[in-house]
Amino acid sequence: MESDLVAWIRDQVPGHPRLGLGPGDDAAILRLGDRPSCVVTVDLLTDGVDFQLDRDAPRRIGRKALAVNLSDLAAMAAQPVAAVIAVALPRHDALSLGRQLLEGLFPLAREFDVAIAGGDTNTWDGPLVISVTLIGETTGRGPLRRSGARPGDLIVVTGQFGGSILGHHFDFTPRVREALLLHERYDLRAGMDVSDGLSLDLGRLCDESRCGAVVWTDQIPISDAARQLAGDAADGSTPLDHALADGEDFELLLAVHADEAARLVADTTIGAPLSIIGEFVAEEGLWQQSAREGRRPLPRRGWEH
Amino acid sequence: MESDLVAWIRDQVPGHPRLGLGPGDDAAILRLGDRPSCVVTVDLLTDGVDFQLDRDAPRRIGRKALAVNLSDLAAMAAQPVAAVIAVALPRHDALSLGRQLLEGLFPLAREFDVAIAGGDTNTWDGPLVISVTLIGETTGRGPLRRSGARPGDLIVVTGQFGGSILGHHFDFTPRVREALLLHERYDLRAGMDVSDGLSLDLGRLCDESRCGAVVWTDQIPISDAARQLAGDAADGSTPLDHALADGEDFELLLAVHADEAARLVADTTIGAPLSIIGEFVAEEGLWQQSAREGRRPLPRRGWEH
Repeated sequence: MESDLVAWIRDQVPGHPRLGLGPGDDAAILRLGDRPSCVVTVDLLTDGVDFQLDRDAPRRIGRKALAVNLSDLAAMAAQPVAAVIAVALPRHDALSLGRQLLEGLFPLAREFDVAIAGGDTNTWDGPLVISVTLIGETTGRGPLRRSGARPGDLIVVTGQFGGSILGHHFDFTPRVREALLLHERYDLRAGMDVSDGLSLDLGRLCDESRCGAVVWTDQIPISDAARQLAGDAADGSTPLDHALADGEDFELLLAVHADEAARLVADTTIGAPLSIIGEFVAEEGLWQQSAREGRRPLPRRGWEH
Repeated sequence: MESDLVAWIRDQVPGHPRLGLGPGDDAAILRLGDRPSCVVTVDLLTDGVDFQLDRDAPRRIGRKALAVNLSDLAAMAAQPVAAVIAVALPRHDALSLGRQLLEGLFPLAREFDVAIAGGDTNTWDGPLVISVTLIGETTGRGPLRRSGARPGDLIVVTGQFGGSILGHHFDFTPRVREALLLHERYDLRAGMDVSDGLSLDLGRLCDESRCGAVVWTDQIPISDAARQLAGDAADGSTPLDHALADGEDFELLLAVHADEAARLVADTTIGAPLSIIGEFVAEEGLWQQSAREGRRPLPRRGWEH
């Protein structure tokens, strides 16, 4: 449903001379003043979908509300600048809840030098909603886009995948610093953050770049949480299934020129594990390839809005 | 409650070199690039508080979500540039509802040349929430602030006051063009938009300017809707009571140098009725004054968040 609405919106919203980059990427780019340098993104989190207020600590919820937006700016290799925060707080206990949300959010803002520029606090009879809009700036190298991957480029990821629901979806550190360093030092052709599932988001990057991709499944860094979920699961899912489809990994997914990829993943000063997990190909579509099973289609699985 | 939380937030949020204007005004100002010109504001509207989805047409709700933000930029005499929109849609009928909201919002965006820069669409089991963040730019004259009123300045307002609930709170046209013209042509010392009630918001402007004000109640332009509400009311409220306290007028409240005020209100090219309704005074506090009743204290009444 949400994807239908998003498609309709894309169709309805005209281009605008102020928009340096239209819809379809992780964040929008605006011309303000004399150069297209302002990056803006918004995420709205709701009780029952993105968190469960009766189970999850408000500080973790508040932190997550900013962290997911920071990950969107990391996806563009942009420097975060300022956030505005809007909340709808359940009327009972609203003051205490509002404080706890912000006590979780503020330390992350400090860590990434994000100015709290304002907000809108509301109380109501409904469940908790928190919406954060984050504004940033592109660096001199411009934004990292989804649309630049070329056949022959290698697929590089940070971190590990799968099982985020066991805690990582609250506690992850957005890959802002890593994205800025990588974008500064290497020829990144395209990139995004993985929020909805590795296979689903890789498909989106391929769509924007009008190419396909082969994932070398033996090379995917699988998290301990993915192994734990697979071990507990009665549905026969494997750790690899979780790594490919769970979502909320908030890791970087990059297209890197083949000549640079080996040097890039050997760079120990980036601050995150880096892995080459496949390559982009001319034929549109996704494939998975392993030593044992050869090459076969890779379904796009993940969080479909 | 909300004001308690806002006070706590103000206390917690440190200054930041990127913030050209801290909390306490209608919108924040950011340094992006080489000058502090980016203005940002957010408003989140919830079912049951800002509208009633079972009574109000979704197109009017969508329009209002952008209009209230435009009014915040008018309050700063800033030029709107781009909006991002986040919604939480009730799961049943979400696609149709989302479309109707945006069909109400998009024409207003076109009218004020606002780029739709992105958004976040969510479905959930809760009631409708819509949050719009609006980004704008100050003009060469800088932002209009709340803090510049001086004793002897006159209080000038656009439009009429009271009774907004009968329809104006949906159908108002934000005073963006009027604010830009007035700021360009006259020496506006301070200003804001009246969203929570004329007496309450005048008190806030006085607080930020560290002065008081005397309102000449005979001079307040009272709307027909205020008269209608007073006529219907069993509580003995007068049209003036409604004009002073109803809120959601979304008119401009300005402090104008006494030498300029008469010329300003005579300017028929601004596009709105303009009235002088009192003066700022050195003694802190609010007073009302009329031919019949002389001078007495004016309580601050309106929408207390």
